[in-house]
Amino acid sequence: MTVSPLAPHTFPVLPDISGVALSTAASGMKYAGRDDMLLMRLEDGGTLAAVFTRSDMAAAPVVWCRQQLAGGGTPRALLVNAGNANAFTGDGGMAAVEACCRGMASRLGCAPGEVMMASTGVIGEEPLDTTILAAQFDSLVAGVAGWQAAAKAIRTTDTFAKGAGAGASIGGRTVHISGIAKGSGMIAPDMATMLGFIATDAALPRDVLAALLAEATKHSFNAITVDSDTSTNDSVYLMASGRAGNPPVSSAADPALDSFRAALDTVMQDLAKQIVRDGEGASKFITVRVAGAADDDAARRIGMAIANSPLVKTAIAGEDANWGRIVMAVGKAGAGVDPRQLDISVGGLRITAGGARLEGYDEAPVAAHMKGDEIDIEVRVGDGPGGARIWTCDLTHGYVSINADYRS
Amino acid sequence: MTVSPLAPHTFPVLPDISGVALSTAASGMKYAGRDDMLLMRLEDGGTLAAVFTRSDMAAAPVVWCRQQLAGGGTPRALLVNAGNANAFTGDGGMAAVEACCRGMASRLGCAPGEVMMASTGVIGEEPLDTTILAAQFDSLVAGVAGWQAAAKAIRTTDTFAKGAGAGASIGGRTVHISGIAKGSGMIAPDMATMLGFIATDAALPRDVLAALLAEATKHSFNAITVDSDTSTNDSVYLMASGRAGNPPVSSAADPALDSFRAALDTVMQDLAKQIVRDGEGASKFITVRVAGAADDDAARRIGMAIANSPLVKTAIAGEDANWGRIVMAVGKAGAGVDPRQLDISVGGLRITAGGARLEGYDEAPVAAHMKGDEIDIEVRVGDGPGGARIWTCDLTHGYVSINADYRS
Repeated sequence: MTVSPLAPHTFPVLPDISGVALSTAASGMKYAGRDDMLLMRLEDGGTLAAVFTRSDMAAAPVVWCRQQLAGGGTPRALLVNAGNANAFTGDGGMAAVEACCRGMASRLGCAPGEVMMASTGVIGEEPLDTTILAAQFDSLVAGVAGWQAAAKAIRTTDTFAKGAGAGASIGGRTVHISGIAKGSGMIAPDMATMLGFIATDAALPRDVLAALLAEATKHSFNAITVDSDTSTNDSVYLMASGRAGNPPVSSAADPALDSFRAALDTVMQDLAKQIVRDGEGASKFITVRVAGAADDDAARRIGMAIANSPLVKTAIAGEDANWGRIVMAVGKAGAGVDPRQLDISVGGLRITAGGARLEGYDEAPVAAHMKGDEIDIEVRVGDGPGGARIWTCDLTHGYVSINADYRS
Repeated sequence: MTVSPLAPHTFPVLPDISGVALSTAASGMKYAGRDDMLLMRLEDGGTLAAVFTRSDMAAAPVVWCRQQLAGGGTPRALLVNAGNANAFTGDGGMAAVEACCRGMASRLGCAPGEVMMASTGVIGEEPLDTTILAAQFDSLVAGVAGWQAAAKAIRTTDTFAKGAGAGASIGGRTVHISGIAKGSGMIAPDMATMLGFIATDAALPRDVLAALLAEATKHSFNAITVDSDTSTNDSVYLMASGRAGNPPVSSAADPALDSFRAALDTVMQDLAKQIVRDGEGASKFITVRVAGAADDDAARRIGMAIANSPLVKTAIAGEDANWGRIVMAVGKAGAGVDPRQLDISVGGLRITAGGARLEGYDEAPVAAHMKGDEIDIEVRVGDGPGGARIWTCDLTHGYVSINADYRS
């Protein structure tokens, strides 16, 4: 598989997170010659929060994890497999998750409900073959891996491994955040077809962690789209080991969390952007900014209409400054925009005013911007307070080839 | 341009409609060597109804026609141009429509507000050059054309001319319906990027005509999608000349209209299907049927989620029986479907039951169905009364080529 032209040059140096142990293994289930399993263990005293797909067809591992987390306990481990999504697999799929979590729990000396699971692959295949996975449990428990190996083990159609990290300070104590993600197609709002695993050594209560994760997800993984298609398996986990020994924090609103919040945003937005950069067939990274909407929801609806429009995405693939398609997309969003208030800029160059093309509009500099691999679209739709920023990629022959020419 | 492989073999024989006169002309504005203007005239005593795009960015001709029709008068003529959409053209665009309608009205001896206009082409170009169009007005008024010539004149990226006709009986009197349409890309619910012009010699009051048109639109032009993108210019007109001399009908609910309603459905559904068959790059015609939803709206939402999914559409382009992507699309529709109640059939072959793949599922016959050029997807989502039927096409390299490689 050719690496995306928009890929970062290198995998970043990510610090180990004290209190969170990683290990990987190769089950051989689908991918030859590479690891396809990941185990993340959280030591005593840690906390964990997670967000999941909003699909009505949530996969068996998502259903399992929601159930366990609703119980209120703190998970001790997270088991990940790539190559079989265990989605739409009925009772057999649920039984497979439970068997895996039981098997791992018995090795870790915890309850089955303290083991979480995340899976990615083709929907509706046979339920997970638990024997093939279980054969690797001992070596997973015995092993040690770094973040890059972990990021590699969770890939499916990804063309590069995705990682991001940042440091922060809570109450004068330095804390670290390291995270990895996978995702390339079936990427859309309400959690892209993606898995994200982020760990920190900060000490944070579970409810604070959940609030921080929900907030950061809104502007990262839920602000991207590749193809408008929402997966059954999306899961993002944030684990906090507490090993940094920062002073206790009891509320997500505590100003002591300002630095941590910013660092978490950095890590999650970096990972989200890497998923878009690995969008199937992507040749351009597109940022859509919407301002002046009635509220943030309306702005998001407009931004997603632009970012998901096949005609906008193919025009950008063709390096065509066809801004009329942006007008079309704003119109179809149904947010009640008055054409006279719609100002469109591409690459910082204003194109429209007063409901028509700007007088004396010169296409040449806009066309030049379209030749680059970072395309900026800004849309002002009125004088309201609502804004949104969406990341997406173009729609190319590569996307069709990847998705029409073999089963991914 | 290569003709779509899904095109009908011939243009149908369509009867002239007494009381509705057609003529075409070549302005040379954008297309060389072909007609690009159409004039439809409705003689005294006729009635007219229209439906338009719901885009917030409705084009100048749509704004003009809505205003005139709201006034309650009966239009006498409809002027159509292909090659410039006159959309997002501000005050200049409105002035251009008014100038055209004034010019034509003075030749026809009617009020400017009795002339309707419909335009199709690229959004946001210069406002219509009224001089170029007006130069053809005299020859349009003097000319006579048949339905096939009319259908050819309104094409843009269409690869074939689209027409359909049917006969019916009202109160024992035979009436005729003939119609044409254009559309290929930017085709989505709430009126595809399309124009449709249908005429009948039946005598029907305007409110009855409007009710019949709204009803028939729901199951024809509003039940198709090529690329989920909604145009700024969609317009469908239905004219009734009254020349057939049928007994008066005063309500759309009158059983005397049963035959006419069925014939109108036939004509409009035929035209709608032809637009899908000419979908940009289309290689397969896809019918999505949804049954058992809570209500028709939920069924439509699920059907559109499937029909608009790039992953479903590319799988079909690749003749891949990847039904997991249908599961994904149902899940993202957010209609609250229980996976255990989701039954998917492709080509009449049942694939799922009880929230998983059917036991003993044999992919071979489904794969054989995928090789054909008519793909049938049926989805039962529960025991509710809601149903929907959506027509769409696959997403191919051809779509990307058409839309990325030049400005259409």
